[in-house]
Amino acid sequence: MNRKELFQLIKRKRSFLCIGLDTDINKIPKHLLSTDDPVFEFNKQIVDATHSLAVAYKPNIAFYESMGSAGWDSLEKTVNYIRSVTTDIFIIADAKRGDIGNTSAMYARTFFSTYNFDAVTLAPYMGLDTVTPFLEYKDCWSIILALTSNKSASDFQYIQDKNGTHLFEDVLKTAETWGSDDQIMFVVGATKAEALQEIRKIVPDNFLLVPGVGAQGGSLEEVAKYGMNDHCGLLVNSSRGIIYASTEEDFAKVARKKATELQEEMELYLEDFGLL
Amino acid sequence: MNRKELFQLIKRKRSFLCIGLDTDINKIPKHLLSTDDPVFEFNKQIVDATHSLAVAYKPNIAFYESMGSAGWDSLEKTVNYIRSVTTDIFIIADAKRGDIGNTSAMYARTFFSTYNFDAVTLAPYMGLDTVTPFLEYKDCWSIILALTSNKSASDFQYIQDKNGTHLFEDVLKTAETWGSDDQIMFVVGATKAEALQEIRKIVPDNFLLVPGVGAQGGSLEEVAKYGMNDHCGLLVNSSRGIIYASTEEDFAKVARKKATELQEEMELYLEDFGLL
Repeated sequence: MNRKELFQLIKRKRSFLCIGLDTDINKIPKHLLSTDDPVFEFNKQIVDATHSLAVAYKPNIAFYESMGSAGWDSLEKTVNYIRSVTTDIFIIADAKRGDIGNTSAMYARTFFSTYNFDAVTLAPYMGLDTVTPFLEYKDCWSIILALTSNKSASDFQYIQDKNGTHLFEDVLKTAETWGSDDQIMFVVGATKAEALQEIRKIVPDNFLLVPGVGAQGGSLEEVAKYGMNDHCGLLVNSSRGIIYASTEEDFAKVARKKATELQEEMELYLEDFGLL
Repeated sequence: MNRKELFQLIKRKRSFLCIGLDTDINKIPKHLLSTDDPVFEFNKQIVDATHSLAVAYKPNIAFYESMGSAGWDSLEKTVNYIRSVTTDIFIIADAKRGDIGNTSAMYARTFFSTYNFDAVTLAPYMGLDTVTPFLEYKDCWSIILALTSNKSASDFQYIQDKNGTHLFEDVLKTAETWGSDDQIMFVVGATKAEALQEIRKIVPDNFLLVPGVGAQGGSLEEVAKYGMNDHCGLLVNSSRGIIYASTEEDFAKVARKKATELQEEMELYLEDFGLL
């Protein structure tokens, strides 16, 4: 899926919502624990209830990996299930990987070949050759961490170089040249919405994956105001705020309600921006 | 295992060799492919042949992950097999993970609880809260990327801040304060041996995990000269140079020969430094 196709998907669904499938077996409703694969069963019901409202799903790999090989089986079943329910979806592996070339080639194989993801999040610290093997998969995206939503983001991302440029700005400037706008996206936390104006001066065209709305306190309105471009250019993620909005038997219904609230708000911003 | 115990292990084995188990099913000897689990069988024979010479093994997780859940099973069997053969060993998950707090807690669970690793490599870009959950496992180590061995390391790691300090030096200075020398280690590539003198001024006491000897061209002699401290302070890794030294049926025997050459050279440096 290229940038234009992703924008068409956003227009069809009147949404730029990404739902984070951070599925923790200790947090899902208790009645699911007697099923064969509680993590998959939870995801399946969330997907059934929300896929008409979301343009993307983003399983965070840590939650699956922590369960060993059984967790990877649940992940594979989840990706395959999403693909079976709809072709109108973008699936992101939130993996934050990054290693030397021959090793990154293995990670690229994991997410784009062994599993059937459209995109993977990558850490920039080791530079270009950690990203190149991912770019060789022509229809797939590398989503590079720029300014993250966590408190400690300031430890290094705000370091200023000799010209006064912050490290996250250096990452944007450099990594933007590594590939086309059809393959390179950046992570910018919603908790840093005020920075989006400056970020858009550096990467006017790239899509941004924006976590941090919901449980982490970011404002969707500000993200849209400062981050939207003529291709929308935003995938805004909510994880805990949707999937754990209820931990009772009605969890999927309540997740749909929360996702609907976000989709309807997003539709307004898309209209305000003249994109619908 | 704390820093003192790791040093005792190094003295007992007269070695600071770490063997990287970057086991790629496309590179292992063909006669193993008919076994039930070729990746595990390969690792088992490498471990049998080399465990008396190495103080550490370091499976790079990408190689296992790329095979899906079956790969994770091979990894688990490998770790358990190493533990069954010897208690005199340190096992590192080369995973280069890093995510926000609640997610890093999942990764910490993966490597220190679901699997039985002593240490995990971590990317520093997102700051302290990505590392804290790992430090809560008191006998386990966080090995933070500082100066990596790949060519593109210079993309960001050599950026100079307003004071002329390189990013990798800022990472060392900051991350050194995150925990004790019994839990924090740093990755410094052997291909950057000349930087070790300056690095030792910043982190005189921390252990360094040094990849890049062998296939990547780093010099063991220079690493020892510039990096060794009074606890040795070095784990020098070789992966491809040992495990793929032969791709025939004699692979384990040849791996032992290569590992012996490195161990004997290391013993000399330990003696020269007055540590044996």
